[in-house]
Amino acid sequence: MDDLKHFRQVDSITPGHPESHDTPGVEVTTGPLGQGFSNAVGLAMAQAHTAAVFNKPGFNLITNHTYCIFGDGCSMEGIASEAASTAGHLQLGNLICIYDDNHISIDGDTACAFTEDVLKRFEAYGWHTQWVKDGDHDLEGIAAALEKAREVKDRPSVIKVTTTIGFGSKLQGTGGVHGNPLKADDCLAVKKKFGFDPEQSFVVPSEVYDLYHKHANEGAAKEQEWNQLLERYGQEYKSEHADLTRRLTGDLPEGWEKNLPTYKLSDPAVASRKLSEIVLTKIHQAIPELLGGSADLTGSNLTRWKDAVDFQPPSTKLGDWTGRYIRYGVREHAMIAIMNGLAAYGTIIPYGGTFLNFVSYAAGAVRLASLSRVRIIIVATHDSIGLGEDGPTHQPIETLAHFRALPNMMVWRPADGNETSAAYYAALTNKHTPSILALSRQNLPQLEGSTIEGAIKGGYVVHEAENADITLVSTGSEVGICVDAVKYLKEQHQITARVVSIPCFEVFDAQPKEYRLKCLPDGIPSLSVEVMSTLGWERYAHEQFGLNRFGASGPYKDVYKKFEFTPEGISKRAIATVDFYKGVKPRSPINRAFQQLI
Amino acid sequence: MDDLKHFRQVDSITPGHPESHDTPGVEVTTGPLGQGFSNAVGLAMAQAHTAAVFNKPGFNLITNHTYCIFGDGCSMEGIASEAASTAGHLQLGNLICIYDDNHISIDGDTACAFTEDVLKRFEAYGWHTQWVKDGDHDLEGIAAALEKAREVKDRPSVIKVTTTIGFGSKLQGTGGVHGNPLKADDCLAVKKKFGFDPEQSFVVPSEVYDLYHKHANEGAAKEQEWNQLLERYGQEYKSEHADLTRRLTGDLPEGWEKNLPTYKLSDPAVASRKLSEIVLTKIHQAIPELLGGSADLTGSNLTRWKDAVDFQPPSTKLGDWTGRYIRYGVREHAMIAIMNGLAAYGTIIPYGGTFLNFVSYAAGAVRLASLSRVRIIIVATHDSIGLGEDGPTHQPIETLAHFRALPNMMVWRPADGNETSAAYYAALTNKHTPSILALSRQNLPQLEGSTIEGAIKGGYVVHEAENADITLVSTGSEVGICVDAVKYLKEQHQITARVVSIPCFEVFDAQPKEYRLKCLPDGIPSLSVEVMSTLGWERYAHEQFGLNRFGASGPYKDVYKKFEFTPEGISKRAIATVDFYKGVKPRSPINRAFQQLI
Repeated sequence: MDDLKHFRQVDSITPGHPESHDTPGVEVTTGPLGQGFSNAVGLAMAQAHTAAVFNKPGFNLITNHTYCIFGDGCSMEGIASEAASTAGHLQLGNLICIYDDNHISIDGDTACAFTEDVLKRFEAYGWHTQWVKDGDHDLEGIAAALEKAREVKDRPSVIKVTTTIGFGSKLQGTGGVHGNPLKADDCLAVKKKFGFDPEQSFVVPSEVYDLYHKHANEGAAKEQEWNQLLERYGQEYKSEHADLTRRLTGDLPEGWEKNLPTYKLSDPAVASRKLSEIVLTKIHQAIPELLGGSADLTGSNLTRWKDAVDFQPPSTKLGDWTGRYIRYGVREHAMIAIMNGLAAYGTIIPYGGTFLNFVSYAAGAVRLASLSRVRIIIVATHDSIGLGEDGPTHQPIETLAHFRALPNMMVWRPADGNETSAAYYAALTNKHTPSILALSRQNLPQLEGSTIEGAIKGGYVVHEAENADITLVSTGSEVGICVDAVKYLKEQHQITARVVSIPCFEVFDAQPKEYRLKCLPDGIPSLSVEVMSTLGWERYAHEQFGLNRFGASGPYKDVYKKFEFTPEGISKRAIATVDFYKGVKPRSPINRAFQQLI
Repeated sequence: MDDLKHFRQVDSITPGHPESHDTPGVEVTTGPLGQGFSNAVGLAMAQAHTAAVFNKPGFNLITNHTYCIFGDGCSMEGIASEAASTAGHLQLGNLICIYDDNHISIDGDTACAFTEDVLKRFEAYGWHTQWVKDGDHDLEGIAAALEKAREVKDRPSVIKVTTTIGFGSKLQGTGGVHGNPLKADDCLAVKKKFGFDPEQSFVVPSEVYDLYHKHANEGAAKEQEWNQLLERYGQEYKSEHADLTRRLTGDLPEGWEKNLPTYKLSDPAVASRKLSEIVLTKIHQAIPELLGGSADLTGSNLTRWKDAVDFQPPSTKLGDWTGRYIRYGVREHAMIAIMNGLAAYGTIIPYGGTFLNFVSYAAGAVRLASLSRVRIIIVATHDSIGLGEDGPTHQPIETLAHFRALPNMMVWRPADGNETSAAYYAALTNKHTPSILALSRQNLPQLEGSTIEGAIKGGYVVHEAENADITLVSTGSEVGICVDAVKYLKEQHQITARVVSIPCFEVFDAQPKEYRLKCLPDGIPSLSVEVMSTLGWERYAHEQFGLNRFGASGPYKDVYKKFEFTPEGISKRAIATVDFYKGVKPRSPINRAFQQLI
């Protein structure tokens, strides 16, 4: 009751919108419209998969439906359309959604903007549809529709329930009851109308307590029954039981990390999207809860290990519910929100691919992944102008700055094979932090100084040098070019450079200051090199070489050359930096006057 | 022909995806899926509005249809669903879309992810639908369907044309013909099959030239006819003619800026979203091409001037086609893409509102606004934790860093009334740069030193002080708190502080270096203060006070206090900064070793 009294107060567990990490019993963090609907699709998919993997004859362990209530706002959002189309394709008979059709959104009557036939649209997606016309009074009708929906096994159900917003208030049927408290007299009248004592506040009638206690007891009995079932399951299906109970702790299987590939200098150059595919190929058997997919770019993202089974309704003959590869279609925003739902279920670690540039389409869901602290992995390939021919419409410039500024998000941009393994290691072992892996289309050489141990610190010295004149700080595909620039600078200009790779800001920032100062020491000027916006690089380097403009369409080597991301181009700026700081021993950017609030 | 030969080569006008600013004849920049479809809805809306405003009896000046071809990928994208629902609501009879139903996307047969009934969905949106079943051969069927679609005046039309992708190639019916050139032998066979000389490349048969020349001549004749009509129109409708021809140049009406309000210290504190409403109220009559709207947050964004007429189909009785206020519904992504289309039409300057946090839902379209250099204005209110009770799900942290990193985007965060007027001035007078105006929910005091002249430089000294110990650099709602901190620092700690406001990085960066150095001089340590991610602030300040974590739900003053964004909290960090730089005369962050590539 105290929590209710602190509704929307600082440090309460009752914020303005439900947040799963703050409030026990809240399954997913919603509020931004369309996210919850899409999370529900993910939860239902998780149920279908988990049931298919673990249920056995006589052991119907995983049986839940997913229920979701959505309104006109969610109906209008594109993300919900994407998710609804996905759910229809997947024939998710375990998903029941109630559409609260109250005809009101913030701008007033939905007649001003939203006049489509919602049920017909859901029919087009392949959903079972029902309509309860008087949702204000017809409770039996709602109950019957729910019962009917539970009987429908071969497709998701939507029940349109036509209601009056703020039913009973003087403001009923208007947007005035959406976000504002009722006025005192209206509040009194509503309480009276529904049989409450109008003089009392923050009171729950004892009948309600009794009813809920009764339900709670029934629930507790069911839970005990289920726990017993699980125990018997453990006797009969030992390894499945161990797997399921382990998954629920969030821990990974012991020794899984031994499957991570390592590389040495002499190994061939490989695109980091391909390195990612190699990791997935090597670890997917060790981590059965990994469930992959792509927003229609499987062959480009390289997210599918060979012989993966698709997660599909068996009737499609394209896969089955045990399948671990999801065909998300061209639906980036729903994909990430569905992944948030998959992760929230507790038995799955989802990853999903698209081009880095199109992770922006999913920004709303990416943000909620961070806020709700779910472990999801976004495989973001074609991560720069290095994608070449597709041109500026596909070449990220602002994208890394965007997601690096997002709290509790690990943005990884590995430089080679060892760093790619490190990125996966961090992404998989951080239970409460989502990751974006920014991966190249083009081949990247294996680096002499790269190690998994270094890279998992988020940043490390990839090439050390005594009495260096400059530190080059870089990520991903540009680290190798920096290493080449070191030679060029030495041979052509007698300048000694060292190279630091910072594949992940978020993780590097969390290292002890002494470690960070060892990477970026006082007294040496530094130059960052990354082929996109320089915004944020001032945090690690005195000078920045980047691309604060849009890219260009062309073969990638030509594009790199146009913008001077070559050993020569880097050297030119390194020399300018060394000259600029001649006679000055600059303080490391790591040294700060005070600690940030985090 | 040379341009075709340079397809996807650096500095060609034939990049991997069509870009309107590079290639004459390309109306909108597309490529990212769903954008072009939504642009088309905007273009059709622009036609309906422009026709309603300018057409007169006997002068049917504005009559064009908008045609759009979209595929399975666009069909799956949520943004296209939002735009299609909008077009259906608006009964856009001038919009004809052809759905290239080839059953193939990058992942292969659409059976793996996309099995909905697309035409039924469009019917649900209120569209007229047709199906040409053999699009490979039935050219008459396509022509007849287009003719029929042109007859439908009361709703948009979609024609599903079932086709074979790569028709004629060995790879027809597969994704193999999507992005890759045909192999040599296949290429020969296709040319042969369709009656071309297989030995010749980059050749256009003379019949094709002839046909196109004929069409071009007909077009030129039509254009001349139209120009004559326009001239006669000018004799009869002088002011309308002057208005229309002026709009097409992109220039604003002379003297419009005299309507911009100015403020003095003694004026009351006002929320900048309200200040924005005051600007719109004062300028909308002077700038008739301003067309506003909101994604269902009109009363919160304050985007609608009093007595505005809604842009609606007359049959709804909610407005008419001359109306200048658009009800976008809860469809942020489509809204911005539609605004891109409205702007591309040439007679309209669109603005549209949502919460700053939900501009992220539209990131894909925002990016294309920047890339395609259209003048659109995004009114982004509730711009920080200062929105209070809605909590972390609604409070931007990463959002400004994201859009500041986007090239050719002006992100404005005005501190008071004069700065809000300046933001509108810049947004309206920069013909080829879109803007985001980040505006507060809470009241902001008018500042003593603020001026339109200063603010339109993107940054300026709002409070100067001789022999200052520190420069506080800030934006928006925090500038006023910094001004209060100046007093606190002086009275409590004998520290002299000056204050610089940088409402727009993009514009400030474009000022001459001497000017920027006057704002941020050498020798004085600086501290940035902004209540969101510090990422990027290292560019302007030695130390940063921000919020690299999610916010909190509560009354806004409590939230500000929790995170110490108070005169005391700022002073604490200012003192730490002054101490840290004691005995050091730090170089201004404006001084750099070399120029960035822009």
